[in-house]
Amino acid sequence: MKFYFAGAIRGGREKLDIYIKINKLLERYGEILDKHVADPNVEKIEKNNSKEEIYNRDINWIKECDVLVAEISTPSLGVGYEISYAENLGKEIICVYDDNINISAMIGGNKNFELINYKNSNDLQNKLEDKLNSLNI
Amino acid sequence: MKFYFAGAIRGGREKLDIYIKINKLLERYGEILDKHVADPNVEKIEKNNSKEEIYNRDINWIKECDVLVAEISTPSLGVGYEISYAENLGKEIICVYDDNINISAMIGGNKNFELINYKNSNDLQNKLEDKLNSLNI
Repeated sequence: MKFYFAGAIRGGREKLDIYIKINKLLERYGEILDKHVADPNVEKIEKNNSKEEIYNRDINWIKECDVLVAEISTPSLGVGYEISYAENLGKEIICVYDDNINISAMIGGNKNFELINYKNSNDLQNKLEDKLNSLNI
Repeated sequence: MKFYFAGAIRGGREKLDIYIKINKLLERYGEILDKHVADPNVEKIEKNNSKEEIYNRDINWIKECDVLVAEISTPSLGVGYEISYAENLGKEIICVYDDNINISAMIGGNKNFELINYKNSNDLQNKLEDKLNSLNI
């Protein structure tokens, strides 16, 4: 399975620990195309790339992936954009979010994809594992 | 001209004054389908709507609009989602943002639409007016 992982970068890194845990889990199921999103040094890693280069690279990875997994607890223009882009390509989409967050209606009210809310990182791990095990990819 | 105005709701209301100014300007050019986004009481107005109702209503307005104008200074899943959705429908898109903000590469690196950065609300007003005057709709 090829994964695209969507997480906030400029929108805020409060959920970085969760991003790292999700990435560790996804690596047991396949390849993460954009591993840098869960890297604490992502802004340093990308500092020599223009925004246009980043955009083109990420769009190509979304086209290439089988499953887009998005952590949506932190508001982010890029994550919202990527979810809609992947939805339009008919990709499998899994959105996970902290139970304490009141998520956007544009994501929470959309019946086209799987939403997983979690109480803590163990709960997330269990629910995401169940979902990944159920995929026929 | 029919406008869809995209601005953060749950992502944060720091730019509400700017949303109101943009809406006043757009009303001189046509109809804003989703006037509630620039209303200080938006969350009260929508409190009896389910997320699914909001999603379906907003998607229908995006389909109906001629131009989507997004204020992208505040990170927002919904705004990112709406921009990609409108882009995919081939809508005219204008994104405006505060000059002090380092915007997402998924928006800033996308060559499919117009980006306007502004120093203050007068600067925004002048630049947005020029852009609206240049549209052939």
